[in-house]
Amino acid sequence: MSTRTLIRGGLVITAAEETHADVLIEDGRIVALAAHGSTVAEGWTAGRTIDATGKYVIPGGVDAHTHMEMPFGGTLAADTFETGTRAAAWGGTTTIVDFAIQSPGQALREGLDAWYAKADGRCAIDYGFHMIVADVNEHSLKEMDLLVQEGVTSFKLFMAYPGVFYSDDGQILRAMQRASHNGGLIMMHAENGIAIDVLVEQALAEGRTDPRYHGEVRKVLLEAEATHRAIQLARVADAPLYVVHVSAEEAVAELAQARDKGLPVFGETCPQYLFLSTDNLAEPDFEGAKYVCSTPLRPREHQAALWRGLRTNDLQVVSTDHCPFCFTGQKDMGRGDFSKIPNGLPGVENRMDLLHQAVVEGHLTRRRWIEIACAAPARMFGLYPRKGTIAPGADADVVIYDPHREQTLSAATHHMNVDYSAYEGKRITGQVETVLSRGEPVIDRREFTGRAGHGQYTPRATCQYLG
Amino acid sequence: MSTRTLIRGGLVITAAEETHADVLIEDGRIVALAAHGSTVAEGWTAGRTIDATGKYVIPGGVDAHTHMEMPFGGTLAADTFETGTRAAAWGGTTTIVDFAIQSPGQALREGLDAWYAKADGRCAIDYGFHMIVADVNEHSLKEMDLLVQEGVTSFKLFMAYPGVFYSDDGQILRAMQRASHNGGLIMMHAENGIAIDVLVEQALAEGRTDPRYHGEVRKVLLEAEATHRAIQLARVADAPLYVVHVSAEEAVAELAQARDKGLPVFGETCPQYLFLSTDNLAEPDFEGAKYVCSTPLRPREHQAALWRGLRTNDLQVVSTDHCPFCFTGQKDMGRGDFSKIPNGLPGVENRMDLLHQAVVEGHLTRRRWIEIACAAPARMFGLYPRKGTIAPGADADVVIYDPHREQTLSAATHHMNVDYSAYEGKRITGQVETVLSRGEPVIDRREFTGRAGHGQYTPRATCQYLG
Amino acid sequence: MSTRTLIRGGLVITAAEETHADVLIEDGRIVALAAHGSTVAEGWTAGRTIDATGKYVIPGGVDAHTHMEMPFGGTLAADTFETGTRAAAWGGTTTIVDFAIQSPGQALREGLDAWYAKADGRCAIDYGFHMIVADVNEHSLKEMDLLVQEGVTSFKLFMAYPGVFYSDDGQILRAMQRASHNGGLIMMHAENGIAIDVLVEQALAEGRTDPRYHGEVRKVLLEAEATHRAIQLARVADAPLYVVHVSAEEAVAELAQARDKGLPVFGETCPQYLFLSTDNLAEPDFEGAKYVCSTPLRPREHQAALWRGLRTNDLQVVSTDHCPFCFTGQKDMGRGDFSKIPNGLPGVENRMDLLHQAVVEGHLTRRRWIEIACAAPARMFGLYPRKGTIAPGADADVVIYDPHREQTLSAATHHMNVDYSAYEGKRITGQVETVLSRGEPVIDRREFTGRAGHGQYTPRATCQYLG
Amino acid sequence: MSTRTLIRGGLVITAAEETHADVLIEDGRIVALAAHGSTVAEGWTAGRTIDATGKYVIPGGVDAHTHMEMPFGGTLAADTFETGTRAAAWGGTTTIVDFAIQSPGQALREGLDAWYAKADGRCAIDYGFHMIVADVNEHSLKEMDLLVQEGVTSFKLFMAYPGVFYSDDGQILRAMQRASHNGGLIMMHAENGIAIDVLVEQALAEGRTDPRYHGEVRKVLLEAEATHRAIQLARVADAPLYVVHVSAEEAVAELAQARDKGLPVFGETCPQYLFLSTDNLAEPDFEGAKYVCSTPLRPREHQAALWRGLRTNDLQVVSTDHCPFCFTGQKDMGRGDFSKIPNGLPGVENRMDLLHQAVVEGHLTRRRWIEIACAAPARMFGLYPRKGTIAPGADADVVIYDPHREQTLSAATHHMNVDYSAYEGKRITGQVETVLSRGEPVIDRREFTGRAGHGQYTPRATCQYLG
Repeated sequence: MSTRTLIRGGLVITAAEETHADVLIEDGRIVALAAHGSTVAEGWTAGRTIDATGKYVIPGGVDAHTHMEMPFGGTLAADTFETGTRAAAWGGTTTIVDFAIQSPGQALREGLDAWYAKADGRCAIDYGFHMIVADVNEHSLKEMDLLVQEGVTSFKLFMAYPGVFYSDDGQILRAMQRASHNGGLIMMHAENGIAIDVLVEQALAEGRTDPRYHGEVRKVLLEAEATHRAIQLARVADAPLYVVHVSAEEAVAELAQARDKGLPVFGETCPQYLFLSTDNLAEPDFEGAKYVCSTPLRPREHQAALWRGLRTNDLQVVSTDHCPFCFTGQKDMGRGDFSKIPNGLPGVENRMDLLHQAVVEGHLTRRRWIEIACAAPARMFGLYPRKGTIAPGADADVVIYDPHREQTLSAATHHMNVDYSAYEGKRITGQVETVLSRGEPVIDRREFTGRAGHGQYTPRATCQYLG
Repeated sequence: MSTRTLIRGGLVITAAEETHADVLIEDGRIVALAAHGSTVAEGWTAGRTIDATGKYVIPGGVDAHTHMEMPFGGTLAADTFETGTRAAAWGGTTTIVDFAIQSPGQALREGLDAWYAKADGRCAIDYGFHMIVADVNEHSLKEMDLLVQEGVTSFKLFMAYPGVFYSDDGQILRAMQRASHNGGLIMMHAENGIAIDVLVEQALAEGRTDPRYHGEVRKVLLEAEATHRAIQLARVADAPLYVVHVSAEEAVAELAQARDKGLPVFGETCPQYLFLSTDNLAEPDFEGAKYVCSTPLRPREHQAALWRGLRTNDLQVVSTDHCPFCFTGQKDMGRGDFSKIPNGLPGVENRMDLLHQAVVEGHLTRRRWIEIACAAPARMFGLYPRKGTIAPGADADVVIYDPHREQTLSAATHHMNVDYSAYEGKRITGQVETVLSRGEPVIDRREFTGRAGHGQYTPRATCQYLG
Repeated sequence: MSTRTLIRGGLVITAAEETHADVLIEDGRIVALAAHGSTVAEGWTAGRTIDATGKYVIPGGVDAHTHMEMPFGGTLAADTFETGTRAAAWGGTTTIVDFAIQSPGQALREGLDAWYAKADGRCAIDYGFHMIVADVNEHSLKEMDLLVQEGVTSFKLFMAYPGVFYSDDGQILRAMQRASHNGGLIMMHAENGIAIDVLVEQALAEGRTDPRYHGEVRKVLLEAEATHRAIQLARVADAPLYVVHVSAEEAVAELAQARDKGLPVFGETCPQYLFLSTDNLAEPDFEGAKYVCSTPLRPREHQAALWRGLRTNDLQVVSTDHCPFCFTGQKDMGRGDFSKIPNGLPGVENRMDLLHQAVVEGHLTRRRWIEIACAAPARMFGLYPRKGTIAPGADADVVIYDPHREQTLSAATHHMNVDYSAYEGKRITGQVETVLSRGEPVIDRREFTGRAGHGQYTPRATCQYLG
Repeated sequence: MSTRTLIRGGLVITAAEETHADVLIEDGRIVALAAHGSTVAEGWTAGRTIDATGKYVIPGGVDAHTHMEMPFGGTLAADTFETGTRAAAWGGTTTIVDFAIQSPGQALREGLDAWYAKADGRCAIDYGFHMIVADVNEHSLKEMDLLVQEGVTSFKLFMAYPGVFYSDDGQILRAMQRASHNGGLIMMHAENGIAIDVLVEQALAEGRTDPRYHGEVRKVLLEAEATHRAIQLARVADAPLYVVHVSAEEAVAELAQARDKGLPVFGETCPQYLFLSTDNLAEPDFEGAKYVCSTPLRPREHQAALWRGLRTNDLQVVSTDHCPFCFTGQKDMGRGDFSKIPNGLPGVENRMDLLHQAVVEGHLTRRRWIEIACAAPARMFGLYPRKGTIAPGADADVVIYDPHREQTLSAATHHMNVDYSAYEGKRITGQVETVLSRGEPVIDRREFTGRAGHGQYTPRATCQYLG
């Protein structure tokens, strides 16, 4: 009885249902739901009882795209697995899927083991890994099979960043063919980096060095083009495809067109594309550097298409692409040359709140909020039904969310290890109150009660939207 | 304790989840789910315990499109509310939404009351009504508001059948405007009936009188055209739209295009379009008459587009349009003149099985099966969460489904009051074993244990896919 | 030798060529072209020699859509065939195709004969007739065949104006089927008049009576819808289709989509849609009434799509739909009720100049100017190669056009019998200098030298874009 | 008078007109056209009079895509400029635009001068050059400007053939930017060669070495993808684009979509894609090798889309891509390895006849035949109005074509220097009778009367479809 937790009186929201039910947790798992006030529910007792009256009881968030302490341009993303997962917990996220990186010339194995080591014993919440394949060759193709068996079932390729992560279309095709056979899911950074690098060089040569030119050279058409190309290559390989950080209306259109044909093509967007724009990139005094990420922020008009895509299910997932660099000491490496600004934004702590704000503002229904933030990423990356829902048998990753509480996002109060907030001063209705990870309180009424090392590495099944 | 029912050991499948859980029912409602073998579940006792080991535990089907004892061309659909709802129960359907009919010149009220009377005390399962508006005028427009408040929240209009149910585009626009304000949902029979009637007249004049000409004159392009027109009128009226019995690939394309724009446009198809084709209409010896319905069966090639539409969610609902006429004495009214064949097919008993067969054949996942047959129609027509799911608080409309049992569809064994089966001889894997309606067994291990009058009239909320 | 005319030194522009050639005319026909300064050309002599040095030598304009003295709402269009064709000549147009009108209940014959009589002996330039079919029935369908043989090869139907010219979809289908067999071309006024009339009634009931509401109720979507519907009906009938006065971007998109499929679908727009907008309809003091026509003027943003359509050949023809009503005494019949404003604008005199202005402004090439204003309407309506080009054998309908002369459009200087100009004060570069009709000067260096009765009725072949 | 030629009694067909006119030629140019039987025409006399009664008088063909004696895979295309242009003349073609080739590492200048030298004094008909840019770099970009001034105004790039002609997307973008400024036209071989090479390697590794695998690995989707990418890069560069040898329906769709947007995107197809298919590639005994070219022949179903594209003007030009290799001694280099078969087909002699056959079969009108084979290529590549039409001032490149004469295509009778015909045994209605090149008979009633060296190098203006 001592391991039992009982959540009373809340509105349980999943991707599919809104239920007035009490939730019973035992040994880290959800064991039962019963209608409020039913004889059954009334009969339940537990070592810990949480009163969720007037609150939402939701699955812990699944952030399928983070980069903790990632090396980039000679520096490291500022959040470690320890600080980053703690911030995630504060924001109601109970699982992250981070990216292990193969260096060119290295085996996938080496990269993966390095990332296992980095994360081991540090995380406040559960975590898994995708694998960045930076060097597609006969050996790494074979390793992909092994990784799928081991629970690393998704592989990220880059059509951008020539000379760093870039794969050419032949490498992409080969990796897709392999994934088609071993069940892996190819994740694509879809920007035509070869063409973009020409425009970068031209911009710098002409003295256009301000952060806002980062947004101008990484053109909408070059994101849409790469998206289209990735889809066609996936069709040739007969493989599914997941396009990360979709930011442009024209790229959404490519996904929509593919999905109308019934193709297994998926798309992710991020809060920054939904709430920020090129207006931010154009902020004076180099402040725009805070918003430099790739794909870049787009003109404000693109936001409507992203919201619509989330509603029409042409986009399925909202992740953060959390990859924070401090303004002082990191972002400022790119003064006078936007191409030297480390690419990435902080956000792992803000995602659940920002998306709840979208519910408040009418962009999304409550159930769709949970779907894009919890259930869909869990299914997409083989974590279902342990993660992403509240049902008997699921891990007791549960958030008590207060839909009425107001807060203001700020670097002064956030828990991410970075010296600015991309949403500084933004007012939000709704806040995480309590977070359970496998039944254990990690955040308890706005106090951190977790610990580094509680979080477990979680091998993943293959994509659950296929077959 | 005597009203408690416990379903042990099954796989609970809803639109969103597959859970290994025991289900506890009390006073006609589902009160709790608990993981198999958990202390909680083991502690449960009940007056009735159903062993569902190796079976699916699914929500009772919701058939949102039936026409019991409907008058058509001087005859009546052969199933009464008594025989039709009993057959529905045999097939695992626990709710129907039938159509009350306004006659031109009459008030909606008169039609609705007539249908209340027809159904009252006769039904084996719960039921609701849509309203067919055959005479859009100032008075009937006002009545629409009242009906929405009363729980009749959807209104069917016809772009076909001039002189019978037909509304012109001005009437359609007015009804849509009204629905836009009162929350009602316009259901549309989308075929250009004015143009079709010209082709009918020409066919008959040229001696093309066989049933297969029914399929030829009701052209694909004229379904697609009407679908497009209905969508544009709905945009002008700023109203949602539900297109019934979509059968043509080109019509699905119109829906997909509208939905890509984020418009609140929905589509229904029926098993006959998924499993039958113009080959059936061309059967010799007037056998084709058995398959005469409108929209008509289409060439086999259209089926792939319908399946794809169901997977991509461009089609949301599968209903039956159950409207049976006996081959002898009814269908044969149209010998020598296909236009006199009563339009309609039997099917209310076959829907859940045929769609499970689609799961077996790989067209659909199990969860999508439940979504299109149970959850989506319930949400679409304001019956959620009482109907269409298995969750604490929902009505205990539950089917124990044996996924391995084999059966052969046949008029010899079916329970619909009609002398033929549209699927005669078709082999199906899967069969309903037991059906509960609000906790009461209606079918108990393949015996009918229900009764006329158990079924209750169920007022409906407005469409739950909006806002 | 006395009937010879020689045009020396100009740049001959046709839809296909720009040639530095002298043009020799004999007996009302063009007999030869020879390179400037060639021995051949130098050897030519003629009774009349026109020096076109520095000028364009272009085919006379073909305005395929005019309504001289048309009855509408109890009044008559203000230009008679005499005044209207004289104004046309002033504007460089040497052929009009006007519309004979069948009244409901009447035979086509009666309407056509009435229009023959109206025009006979009055026209300054050549003319032909389309036939408005206001009552599609067995008799009028048969008459269509006769009219095609007689040289009236195009038939206009209306999806607008219920109770006046309106045909329902069945009538449209029948007429299209007939045209499919007899070679006739269906011209369509594509607006959903049934739906529009609902919106008109609602607007008036709510006190929205100003001219600008004319533009609001005749919605873009209802033009696009009708365009789509007409195309689908034409596909069912396997007939070609010509959509008149296309004004909305969405309607152009429907045409483009159809043409991409290779369907014989054609579109016309008019100068008012290219140069005017709803801003004009919103002019105060009832001035907006001057711009009331149907389809209505659209928001300015639609103009780009129309220009693009003309360049991409998704629109083939620019006609005027010339149908003038005086502001005083006619347009003002609709004060307090926009639906009573006679529909129509003056323009027959301005078309060639406005389109030349489009050349100056870069919307069109010179050759495309001649194509959409001369060659394409001639081919579309069976007047080629007599009209619309400059080639041996063609009628000597020739305009000497000064591309550099500047003018200002104004009612003070125009020759149309109407008390206002829709383009009052607009500055234009380019002006007609001399106009020949079958070799005879009608305008001679900006003096009218023609006469009523010179213009001949011109029977037409069938559409020359088919087969 | 001695240099005068008079063509009497024929039907003069241009892209725009069909005129019954006599044609007068003087000093190699057309000086005048006059109506048959007119006083003017009757008065003409000439040193040479050709009776064209019952014949067509058409502009000489312009074949904008040939590869005479082109080096490929260690061998040379079998036709020299002498044999190839002679064969062209036999087929009614009076101008070719061949491709000078830059070798990687070389300057454009070197390549161009080499080709000038190859062709000089050898050609029977006039000729120009495009430039293949195989090495886009700072130097070659600058040379592009000079070449445009010199009359080499079009530049071919390859998305296929990595390691040979291939340019990456950055190089393509740079070349397009340059063309955008200097008025040049980028011609694109649009196939994703990087991906194709993977499939080639896989096919060979699996023993799929037969010629038909050439067609299988060069997938339709990879042509469509590259076409889409080229269009997007052209949009980024704000440059026009001409896609060569379009063979796949999906590629036509990309062009159509771009052109609907009004983009300056053009497409060429070739007779082999219109008349041959993968059936030919699958011919046994290595006969398929005769049909190996890139883009490859496609399944027969694609032909309809190509014909439709030619009618809808989504394709503007038909060239031959003439690049013949003998079956014996050249094609057979690829026995056992389809990737070693020299790519290319003979056809320069057959184009005008095959397209006339398309007129006979109803695919094209006569005027469209002349447009796609003469006028459009002349305009596209800056040769108008000297080439591609019959008008005063144009070069007297004229073909007397007998539309009724029947012939059978065969290697036994053709004049191309290659040991097989791709159309062996094909029966054609229509044949060239007489060909004038700048007024001189090259073919005279089916005898060759031309000579090597008559043909002149013809510098070209920039594309005449722009601005």
